[in-house]
Amino acid sequence: MSLPSSTSIEQPQPRVHDVDVITCKAAVAWGAGQPLVIEQVNVSPPQPMEIRIKVVCTSLCRSDLSAWESQTIFPRIFGHEATGIVESVGEGVTEFTQGDHVLTVFIGECGKCRQCESGKTNICQLLGLERRGLMHCDQRTRFSINATGEPVYHYCAVSSFSEYTVVHSGCAVKISSLVPLEKVCLLSCGVAAGLGAAWNVADISDGSSVVIFGLGTVGLSVAQGANLRGASQIIGVDTNPEKGENAKAFGITEFINPNDSKEPIQQVIKHLTGGGADYSFECIGDTGMVTTALQACCDFYSFHLASFLSGVCLKGWGLTVTLGVPKVKPEITAHYGAFLTGRTLKGSLFGGWKPKSDLPSLVEMYTKKEIQVDEYISHNLPFEDVNKAFNLMLEGKCLRCVIHMEN
Amino acid sequence: MSLPSSTSIEQPQPRVHDVDVITCKAAVAWGAGQPLVIEQVNVSPPQPMEIRIKVVCTSLCRSDLSAWESQTIFPRIFGHEATGIVESVGEGVTEFTQGDHVLTVFIGECGKCRQCESGKTNICQLLGLERRGLMHCDQRTRFSINATGEPVYHYCAVSSFSEYTVVHSGCAVKISSLVPLEKVCLLSCGVAAGLGAAWNVADISDGSSVVIFGLGTVGLSVAQGANLRGASQIIGVDTNPEKGENAKAFGITEFINPNDSKEPIQQVIKHLTGGGADYSFECIGDTGMVTTALQACCDFYSFHLASFLSGVCLKGWGLTVTLGVPKVKPEITAHYGAFLTGRTLKGSLFGGWKPKSDLPSLVEMYTKKEIQVDEYISHNLPFEDVNKAFNLMLEGKCLRCVIHMEN
Repeated sequence: MSLPSSTSIEQPQPRVHDVDVITCKAAVAWGAGQPLVIEQVNVSPPQPMEIRIKVVCTSLCRSDLSAWESQTIFPRIFGHEATGIVESVGEGVTEFTQGDHVLTVFIGECGKCRQCESGKTNICQLLGLERRGLMHCDQRTRFSINATGEPVYHYCAVSSFSEYTVVHSGCAVKISSLVPLEKVCLLSCGVAAGLGAAWNVADISDGSSVVIFGLGTVGLSVAQGANLRGASQIIGVDTNPEKGENAKAFGITEFINPNDSKEPIQQVIKHLTGGGADYSFECIGDTGMVTTALQACCDFYSFHLASFLSGVCLKGWGLTVTLGVPKVKPEITAHYGAFLTGRTLKGSLFGGWKPKSDLPSLVEMYTKKEIQVDEYISHNLPFEDVNKAFNLMLEGKCLRCVIHMEN
Repeated sequence: MSLPSSTSIEQPQPRVHDVDVITCKAAVAWGAGQPLVIEQVNVSPPQPMEIRIKVVCTSLCRSDLSAWESQTIFPRIFGHEATGIVESVGEGVTEFTQGDHVLTVFIGECGKCRQCESGKTNICQLLGLERRGLMHCDQRTRFSINATGEPVYHYCAVSSFSEYTVVHSGCAVKISSLVPLEKVCLLSCGVAAGLGAAWNVADISDGSSVVIFGLGTVGLSVAQGANLRGASQIIGVDTNPEKGENAKAFGITEFINPNDSKEPIQQVIKHLTGGGADYSFECIGDTGMVTTALQACCDFYSFHLASFLSGVCLKGWGLTVTLGVPKVKPEITAHYGAFLTGRTLKGSLFGGWKPKSDLPSLVEMYTKKEIQVDEYISHNLPFEDVNKAFNLMLEGKCLRCVIHMEN
């Protein structure tokens, strides 16, 4: 399993900056679905505007799992939901110094591009979602296998399943050294993504009805966000019966397992909400479920049978937010009438948060105990057990597994 | 061509109210696509909370044409964009008296239902879109053929291609007798629908870029609305080259005929807008074009090729509004990544206007010359030439044909 010889993926040349290559342990994925292998890797010095981080904790997110299962870019170091301590900084970096505590983020914020300045999006033009396994600035890697020199791809420009990693300085957020790194790593992606979807993207209003498809950490964070906004009904939907057990701790008022119902889930939700939910969230990564989520905001039966022709669509509003990244069937299909009669479909990437602008206030809310974070941590594992985290998530046995890089 | 004998479509029984059946001329559609026939019809007295109107002017809307071409409910009297004078009122009606000038509306406003009180929708629960050809309150008709007694179906609970018609009092809006009825009938549907889509549904912001698919009256009213909101770029797309000629009068800054371009239209729009439009509107009634409209808000090529995987979707926002009612293929299909990276899809029915609450202010804007209405009237025809209006619209030769019921 070797990479094509192309200059585009070579490691950067040695630079004038007086920082050495670090050799350390990293969990390397050599192929789709293959257990990670702890390897000795070389981590290049940070390039201009980059920082090298000693990773402290990193939790496993479903996106890591999905990419590991389905993608073709290998060897690769996954992990993007992490905290660490700055080890060294590249040229031009003034925001960070050695010893700073940081959250990593999988979409950065340069603060200067058209997107960052627009006020309309959290997707930075320079540091948006990087999915080719390379660093944003030079389309190269900062990792190689120590023994062979073979380059190793990044994941989301973070790659935190390594004792050390290099990220663009725009993809890290400085946090107080008093904040527990083993907890707030969850604000690096999952918990923040769910809270932001509820607050920034959907802007859930007091007293509303909410339905959430998929009760992983993201879905349960949407639930927390909805609860904090005063939603009166928060329905959680999951085919895993175990997901219902702790869901109420995050604000879920009713749990539905579609396998327990003879009626289509949209119909069940219609009955529970009196005609359809005000908001629905797809947190699974299944485009078919996005259609269902749209229908859950609508009086589905009177809509589809006799249907729009009868004009009896009892709800004239409803917002569906899609958060998941599907592994198959990327196309969403939905009846035009759902939109014409008042439904809206939006997406949410990292909950609409601009990381540098917004995450410090989320961290502050955590320190003030205004939001739950610790409660999503179902397991703590040492780095060498990283594959256990993958297995737990595959089996639906965990919320967040936090991987501690040092025992 | 006769209706099944069912009590549900019988005319109401004579009532205590002292109002007679009126016999008058109406343009009756006897089958899909068949020329209308001017028939003598009986128009029942208005039932409780209804009013009977002497129609003064009625313009032909594409929805009339689409329903006439494709639906199965016949015989029927089309027409819903109209003005008239109240001839008599049913029991319980206090809002109108004989002689009042009114606009008819195809979705009403009862003012009391959950929907009307929600502040979230303009689709009344009682008087929403009626597409079975019957009156909302009793699911019967108010028309019959004078010679045979055969019931005749309504269209959108308005049926203005008749000298007299009966509508629910919630489906009419009182206007000043000083307002020219032969002009403001266009505010009964088309022009209001376009302006409202731009203002209420999309809420277009100053300096933005807008693309409009379909330059009929609705599309050109979106253009007017965008122009009045200060959009800096308003691109009109239509395969009919004649539509480009007068489009600039309504604010269109660039006209594109997709047949003149080798590139996909999304790509053309990408070039013109620097990465995708801020707003796109589908005013044709083609669900495939809704997909195109979504892509027109996005850097389509970098999105689809190498695609989302590369993360290079240059625009992180963009709102697509679908206004059209498709005759075929009711399903909209779109790539999930368009939503995840910031696109929103909404629908617009009657531009989000609540007719009784909002239309008076639109009429006032017209009288103050703050909005254009007259300019959409391309033809004035006497009632007996109603089929000419259908032909002109079929041939793409008109904007609005106003039909004058009296010569």
